[in-house]
Amino acid sequence: MTHATPPLSPTIADIKALIHREARRVTSYDVAIAAGVSQSAVSRCFKPGASVSKATYARVMQAAAELAYTPNAAARSLNTRRSNLVALIAPDLLHQQSPELLAELSRQFSLRGMRLVLFSQPREAAPGSLSEVWEHQLDGAIVAASLSEPQLAEFERRALPFVLFNLSVRDKNVNAVLCDQVGAARTMVARLAAAGHKRFAMIDGPAGSAMAQQRRRGVAERLAELGLAPPLCVSGEHDYASGARGLREIVARLGHAPDAIICGNDAMAIGCLDTARHELGLAVPGQLSVTGFDGMAQAGWLSYNLTTLRQPVRQMAQATADMLAGLIGTGNAGCERRVFSASVVEGATARLGPTA
Amino acid sequence: MTHATPPLSPTIADIKALIHREARRVTSYDVAIAAGVSQSAVSRCFKPGASVSKATYARVMQAAAELAYTPNAAARSLNTRRSNLVALIAPDLLHQQSPELLAELSRQFSLRGMRLVLFSQPREAAPGSLSEVWEHQLDGAIVAASLSEPQLAEFERRALPFVLFNLSVRDKNVNAVLCDQVGAARTMVARLAAAGHKRFAMIDGPAGSAMAQQRRRGVAERLAELGLAPPLCVSGEHDYASGARGLREIVARLGHAPDAIICGNDAMAIGCLDTARHELGLAVPGQLSVTGFDGMAQAGWLSYNLTTLRQPVRQMAQATADMLAGLIGTGNAGCERRVFSASVVEGATARLGPTA
Repeated sequence: MTHATPPLSPTIADIKALIHREARRVTSYDVAIAAGVSQSAVSRCFKPGASVSKATYARVMQAAAELAYTPNAAARSLNTRRSNLVALIAPDLLHQQSPELLAELSRQFSLRGMRLVLFSQPREAAPGSLSEVWEHQLDGAIVAASLSEPQLAEFERRALPFVLFNLSVRDKNVNAVLCDQVGAARTMVARLAAAGHKRFAMIDGPAGSAMAQQRRRGVAERLAELGLAPPLCVSGEHDYASGARGLREIVARLGHAPDAIICGNDAMAIGCLDTARHELGLAVPGQLSVTGFDGMAQAGWLSYNLTTLRQPVRQMAQATADMLAGLIGTGNAGCERRVFSASVVEGATARLGPTA
Repeated sequence: MTHATPPLSPTIADIKALIHREARRVTSYDVAIAAGVSQSAVSRCFKPGASVSKATYARVMQAAAELAYTPNAAARSLNTRRSNLVALIAPDLLHQQSPELLAELSRQFSLRGMRLVLFSQPREAAPGSLSEVWEHQLDGAIVAASLSEPQLAEFERRALPFVLFNLSVRDKNVNAVLCDQVGAARTMVARLAAAGHKRFAMIDGPAGSAMAQQRRRGVAERLAELGLAPPLCVSGEHDYASGARGLREIVARLGHAPDAIICGNDAMAIGCLDTARHELGLAVPGQLSVTGFDGMAQAGWLSYNLTTLRQPVRQMAQATADMLAGLIGTGNAGCERRVFSASVVEGATARLGPTA
């Protein structure tokens, strides 16, 4: 005796159990089965502006709720060609020395419905390969690590919008948000020279850093214009230890302290300052003026009160988000450079003369 | 007289021009047209193990190269259900106070072919909504912001693997990587008490922070066991300014400095230390011992040489990446808590007695 096979009618519980057994996400297919509608009907329910009957819509929404289904961004991005993800290509040290910048960029992009994906480079040199960046579907990129010409060309070839952050490229039109490093360095030299400093030294950032090059250029240019000797430059890695090492090297090479040491960033300036005071017994700014760059939070701590140059991090992050969101939204290829000025923070570690 | 329409034969240049005009990415469809093969043949060329003729493969690879086509991760993730993206759900302050941790997590995940997507929370409280997290196709999440029970349940309902970082949840089996905050706090109290400190105060982290709660609990527990008075607790926001404000409040309420102030993290301890020395003229550790938590880089700077508790950040980041990669790879639901111990950094800001 044979029985008729009962009709197949999977319940929500059956479907949930299946999904659980397969340890996978809920898909539009699951929702379609649960609601008894086609997969394309499910898609239409989640597509703004698409038409679907009220009854179908209600069934689909009920099934979606019971299965905890969210139409995922990856699937939608294949339709809208948007992932709402933006690469941040930056040296590791960016996070360590500008955590405020990272927090601000993250906040500004998230206000625009976008999220940062971190592509950290171990050193402040050009990244070896960007193949991992191309692997993900990204809407755009913030580039804060020095890229080679072919690497920049690759962005254009792939039509991936990008904004350079604190980098500029000579003889090439690119979108960039910058702080005027050369101008900032020139200002600091002028203020120090106006207070009578004559013998300058510099603890410089790494050779591969475009930002460090510009700061060095501004210092050298302005000293030459003022008829002062070029600075004794020693090289550092933008960290505290480099500042300590740099000061020892400068004093060893000169046989004494110079009048002023301009450091390529605040972390090195703080290392230089601590070593001057606690190891070499030098009075700062009595015997030696020490200045930094960046205006990081620690520069303002009472033990330091560092004389430095503050970059307007919040405005720069906002400009970056505005610019990149604009490029992504319009596909507009017009190029713009937004250049912000640093401001002198008159701390207690350098004798400064008046503004020219 | 009519002419036969010439056969349509778009060249690579035509296709490129079209893509450029539409300001869009190159798709497998473009490659298929350029190579004169089906779209599914293109897919098979980029799918490991799929079969395709040598001639087709050569044509597709040539077209892909000329169009600069990369099969994107979003498209592939729909097949493999992998995006190689992992959410980092953390308070803003994580980046500001543990930049080393962020750099290390980014490095450890990138060694495993995965990238972090930042979901920063403005405060150290539970995030209001995780809807933005569900919107993206992510393989897993690192949760370093206190979540509510329903929020944790939502991860499970969606079968999204996650690892709690420096958070634990009572009465619930979850995967977590932790530093033993209670144990660390107990050790510091014991070492301070062994040196004769009797009147303790605490500058505590924010009320919403589970980590702060545990540090506070460890301090209170051990003081009670030693028969000492409970600490005078004032609340802070884990930043430098809170340390300064906290010290002023403690001194105002007691009418004098306590013997020791245990601060909920290093930034607050440094703020407390600077204010003690430079504003209130207190000798540290002569008149007052100050201790921190975390072992951040700045704690080791010569001006501070802070007595603190160092968390093994590198090992914790590595354990997190190992654990989450394992969960994603196997879908294994087994629960594990990996608990690391902090070590005392014997700086110069507190008088410590011997280990019990």
